[in-house]
Amino acid sequence: MWKSVGNGTLEGVSSVSDIDPSKLTITTSDTLKPIPPSETLQFGVTKTDHMLVISFDPENGWSAPEIKPYGPISLDPASSCFQYATNAFEGMKAYLGPDGEPRLFRPNMNMARMERSVERAALPSFNSQALLSLIKRLVLLERRWIPTEPGYSLYVRPTMIGTRSSLGVSASDQALLYVICLPTGPFFLGASKEISLLGVSDTVRAWPGGTGCFKLAVNYGPGFQPLREATKRGYSQVLWLLGDKITEAGAMNFFAVVERDDGDLDLITPPLDGTILPGVTRQSIIDLANAHTEGKTPLPNIPPSQKLYVHEQDLTMTYLKRWHDQGKLIETFCVGTAVIVGSVTKIGHDGKDIVLDASKVKHSLTDAFLERLSAIQVGTFPFENWSVPCNP
Amino acid sequence: MWKSVGNGTLEGVSSVSDIDPSKLTITTSDTLKPIPPSETLQFGVTKTDHMLVISFDPENGWSAPEIKPYGPISLDPASSCFQYATNAFEGMKAYLGPDGEPRLFRPNMNMARMERSVERAALPSFNSQALLSLIKRLVLLERRWIPTEPGYSLYVRPTMIGTRSSLGVSASDQALLYVICLPTGPFFLGASKEISLLGVSDTVRAWPGGTGCFKLAVNYGPGFQPLREATKRGYSQVLWLLGDKITEAGAMNFFAVVERDDGDLDLITPPLDGTILPGVTRQSIIDLANAHTEGKTPLPNIPPSQKLYVHEQDLTMTYLKRWHDQGKLIETFCVGTAVIVGSVTKIGHDGKDIVLDASKVKHSLTDAFLERLSAIQVGTFPFENWSVPCNP
Repeated sequence: MWKSVGNGTLEGVSSVSDIDPSKLTITTSDTLKPIPPSETLQFGVTKTDHMLVISFDPENGWSAPEIKPYGPISLDPASSCFQYATNAFEGMKAYLGPDGEPRLFRPNMNMARMERSVERAALPSFNSQALLSLIKRLVLLERRWIPTEPGYSLYVRPTMIGTRSSLGVSASDQALLYVICLPTGPFFLGASKEISLLGVSDTVRAWPGGTGCFKLAVNYGPGFQPLREATKRGYSQVLWLLGDKITEAGAMNFFAVVERDDGDLDLITPPLDGTILPGVTRQSIIDLANAHTEGKTPLPNIPPSQKLYVHEQDLTMTYLKRWHDQGKLIETFCVGTAVIVGSVTKIGHDGKDIVLDASKVKHSLTDAFLERLSAIQVGTFPFENWSVPCNP
Repeated sequence: MWKSVGNGTLEGVSSVSDIDPSKLTITTSDTLKPIPPSETLQFGVTKTDHMLVISFDPENGWSAPEIKPYGPISLDPASSCFQYATNAFEGMKAYLGPDGEPRLFRPNMNMARMERSVERAALPSFNSQALLSLIKRLVLLERRWIPTEPGYSLYVRPTMIGTRSSLGVSASDQALLYVICLPTGPFFLGASKEISLLGVSDTVRAWPGGTGCFKLAVNYGPGFQPLREATKRGYSQVLWLLGDKITEAGAMNFFAVVERDDGDLDLITPPLDGTILPGVTRQSIIDLANAHTEGKTPLPNIPPSQKLYVHEQDLTMTYLKRWHDQGKLIETFCVGTAVIVGSVTKIGHDGKDIVLDASKVKHSLTDAFLERLSAIQVGTFPFENWSVPCNP
């Protein structure tokens, strides 16, 4: 763990306390909120009754964890999280299984990524397995908030913010780690399920040597002005380009499906070169595609004889247009914890649109991945222990 | 001004209130804090008694400004400033003039930059001249906090944070604008006045199409881990490289002084190509160098016959090393509101150090700029109305 060596710098030594789930205190809310009808839920708006809070200071380390009524955070105006964006987070989803038990989807991947993000933000390190056991405890307490309709779930947002209250331009040696829960429905509620993307290269989301592969707050705010311009022009999200190269779509990973001459399919997504978030859903799509092709676990409604060849490789607008002109670009889709899998049917670039007609696709991979992932997440299709019960 | 058009998007229309200084309310603190001895002041730690706060929501626009006792800010844990780093700020300094009146240094440059930063962060726009009049009012109230020792001043930090309490990944249509004041001394207190820099290219501060030219929180947090590594290796700050190109030093602009064969000097700083913060001090150095060379206002202790030729042009490590090997690299220095002008005497790169011996310099430009700027800031050397009294 950490000790402060002055000027906000922490040095790794085993001198202060790590997160200790056995010290958890739970204070439940006196009045529980009414649960709104699921069909009214907008992503990220409705919060549950409670939150998990743990604080860090360099003298005492991580505090005893608290689950307490959801409420505001009070911080000095000079805090590092306001001034210097020393903020990391994660996005996870909890589901109610067919046994009525809450479960999380591949939570260890989120925990490992959060450790990396926190290190990149020079925030205090933490035991992510201890955090995960507390998240499970919180989800169990908020069980009544988990929607059961298809496409609905309880979104879980672990967040760590720097709380050092000095303007000195260096690492925050104080932090607040909190977890909030928000019942949520399909990501693009009310809007078309089909995503349209505007390719943007004059503003750039991530760069080699930047922070694109970490889940940091800094990767999001700078995208909002370009998103506003894209929505004005009728597109639902930005397709982030680095020159000609496709990187991400909005806050999602991007896949293209290209048909081979023999009818098999190439499934192409940008490689983890430092500019791409290593998405849990991204990895799961790759794993499911490989499991299909290996004959282990065929995808629903995809002929087992149709092979899917995964390529984590550079993907350019030039190639995308060429494949589309040649009639080989079958599908494009975005993936992420919030959206799960979303069909992309229009991509604007340089004043022209690539338009894909999803209805013409004989065996939709987008649908197959969404159906299979959703079944694994809810726990009706067991696969590789990806769906992890919250009860010990 | 702005109205909300849903999903956190604001559309410019004149439907809500802008900042109105005539609506200012002032609530003074019951107990004023003791003012610590100036020599104990560390940058960014000590706050004054009061702060200015104005909030924005899309229905009512900017609220009536309040000056009130300095204290914590209370926000929903899902707020945009925590989750997506929708935060912009400024750094300014107030001085007591020889007439005993508080004054600010070129505040219009900060206000213009803050307008650009806020737009880039997709935060609500604001009337920056109204904000400036309120900042002057706050500085006048905090007059007793302005240190008068040479090198000391009252640091003023206007900050705007997004306060939309939804995880939806789009612009914050709610915001808090606040201004805090911190008495401060020389930036590198206790440490050597001489700055050592470690050239870093594996992590990158800013890139074309990024946010490097805006004063946004997102430009700072990602620098703290590389800074920690640099300080471990004995350097005081990071020299941010983009490939071979020098961009900024820590959170400061960088200048190199190169001697010509005829004894005149080239003063070189990276151009405002989008990766460089357009620093107020940077521009002031350029203006003062030009005023010297034009014979209008010679710099102190620099022979009027010695011309300074300013070049805003790409500056590479390769050239810096070559000039040093040729004995032409006379001085390197960093500039910024906090440091003003700081001599750089060591630059590490690729395992070698460029070492400059400041004592060998006959006529130090670093010293000349620091002396002249300080005199202008305090108001003892009037120049181009750069020092602006807070009293109307």
